Amino acid sequence: MNEIFAEKTPEFADVLAAAARIARHAHVTPVLRSRTLDALAGAELFFKCENFQRAGAFKFRGACNAVWSLSGDEAPRGVVTHSSGNHGAALALAAKTRGIPAHVVVPEGAVKSKLAAIEAYGAQLNFCAPTMAAREAMAAQVQARTGATLVHPFTDPRVIAGQGTAALELASEIDNLAVVLAPIGGGGLIGGTAIAIAGCAGGTRVVAAEPDGADEAWRSLQGGVRVTEHSPKTVCDGLRGTLGEINFTLLRRYGVDILRVSDDDTLAAQRLLAERMKIVAEPSSAIVLAAVLRHRDRFAGQRIGLIITGGNVE
Amino acid sequence: MNEIFAEKTPEFADVLAAAARIARHAHVTPVLRSRTLDALAGAELFFKCENFQRAGAFKFRGACNAVWSLSGDEAPRGVVTHSSGNHGAALALAAKTRGIPAHVVVPEGAVKSKLAAIEAYGAQLNFCAPTMAAREAMAAQVQARTGATLVHPFTDPRVIAGQGTAALELASEIDNLAVVLAPIGGGGLIGGTAIAIAGCAGGTRVVAAEPDGADEAWRSLQGGVRVTEHSPKTVCDGLRGTLGEINFTLLRRYGVDILRVSDDDTLAAQRLLAERMKIVAEPSSAIVLAAVLRHRDRFAGQRIGLIITGGNVE
Repeated sequence: MNEIFAEKTPEFADVLAAAARIARHAHVTPVLRSRTLDALAGAELFFKCENFQRAGAFKFRGACNAVWSLSGDEAPRGVVTHSSGNHGAALALAAKTRGIPAHVVVPEGAVKSKLAAIEAYGAQLNFCAPTMAAREAMAAQVQARTGATLVHPFTDPRVIAGQGTAALELASEIDNLAVVLAPIGGGGLIGGTAIAIAGCAGGTRVVAAEPDGADEAWRSLQGGVRVTEHSPKTVCDGLRGTLGEINFTLLRRYGVDILRVSDDDTLAAQRLLAERMKIVAEPSSAIVLAAVLRHRDRFAGQRIGLIITGGNVE
Repeated sequence: MNEIFAEKTPEFADVLAAAARIARHAHVTPVLRSRTLDALAGAELFFKCENFQRAGAFKFRGACNAVWSLSGDEAPRGVVTHSSGNHGAALALAAKTRGIPAHVVVPEGAVKSKLAAIEAYGAQLNFCAPTMAAREAMAAQVQARTGATLVHPFTDPRVIAGQGTAALELASEIDNLAVVLAPIGGGGLIGGTAIAIAGCAGGTRVVAAEPDGADEAWRSLQGGVRVTEHSPKTVCDGLRGTLGEINFTLLRRYGVDILRVSDDDTLAAQRLLAERMKIVAEPSSAIVLAAVLRHRDRFAGQRIGLIITGGNVE
């Protein structure tokens, strides 16, 4: 078996199982359209609005699948993760739906409103120094103390399968998409999206949008080796994570293309989404529209699905 | 026949006919929910999102019904209205869907971005002094010159019937609403809403939300005489119009209640809609949520429909 297939990766059946598992808890989000944006892009755009998902982002899907995948023995000991962003809030809310404890490791100095959201869902905050090593050490410590299950924001197979349910819904509702675009940070969403689309919409390509200033996934695909040295500089705070190993495997297995996008284009797209579609989207979401508008020729005349991942802005 | 019934007012059949007439052109807008807002209100809230309507507001429904109601003789001469706001843009777009001319009378000094939107839909702008008398005189002049049909923003029965289709869709999709709330300015939306709800959801009450600083409709109902002396002071720029005669008739016929709301409450509700529902709503829309949150006891535990009328903000 090829080395890149050595790790257990989720499959289409896992996405279907996730969809069934989260159905009672997650929203089936609407697919919105805008004639103005269609005209700007010269294409038919279908926006899968995960900014309307519970806790404000697609992250709830993966977190919810992980929480409801726990065995009867594991569940009472709760879950733990390190994330001060959408995954932290999503896992806190997911744990609340099952009535189990959630521990979220957050760096000192994290944005207060985000911490307040995590606490409002009933999770316990654990502060640590703002480095990845300190976060992982603190998470391991919480795990050892409480017996909680670690739910990594993007490498956990249950999380990846859960994220795939957004594309599953999109492709079930909208026929004949030529392309589905999703942003890429650590690669949980794009991994799940690739699995879902391959399973239910074979003719549809999957394309990722990545910030110019955090393009380690693009460089990883170019070089054929996962880049882990990475100093992200981008307004897309949800896309600063470093591509995971399992996520790199999925990108290659499913032939996902990556388009790089400047922050200026992304911020312009965010304004268009507010002015023309009347939705609040994070820069990390708006990047997919920016990619389509920047690569007009590539998408012209096609039916394009865009996953608007979240709407949690300051 | 009672004097207040003397004018020809639209009926439920007119709303149904409007729904059929505009079906090929207008969006069936989504009904969104938010558990956070439900918890804040202590009620089940169903938001009919007309900010996702074409041209960004429910106004397209009424304008479209008026345009497509024109006879084959009338249509080629076009339509005319006086409105620098959503109705002007909506009528311009509606005329475009039928390929007929639109003339929009606007006051000198009107917001440039709004005028740009009206022109982008292909309408011809006619500038006049910023008084109601000047607007009406200019509209009459355009009518005389072109033979265009006047489509008043809120007293035209075709417009009122068209606006009622939003509530028709809402009540068709969501059962057992105790109340439907809509904002009141000139009274076109609330009139159509009252007709639609009486026709298809007999047990549902209709309540209007009106700014404290533009409460002439509330005073009209209190005194039993339509108040036309009116110096509106409110951030809700869509609700500054003076209640029309036909609209007053409809308010009384259908027993519509009016709740007055402060601008501060409305702006707080607008922020909640952005932060919690991830939608861009005008203050003139957010006022309905403000009314529910201010009158918590009145709505507690009930299923409440709220018409979010538009999302055209600067």
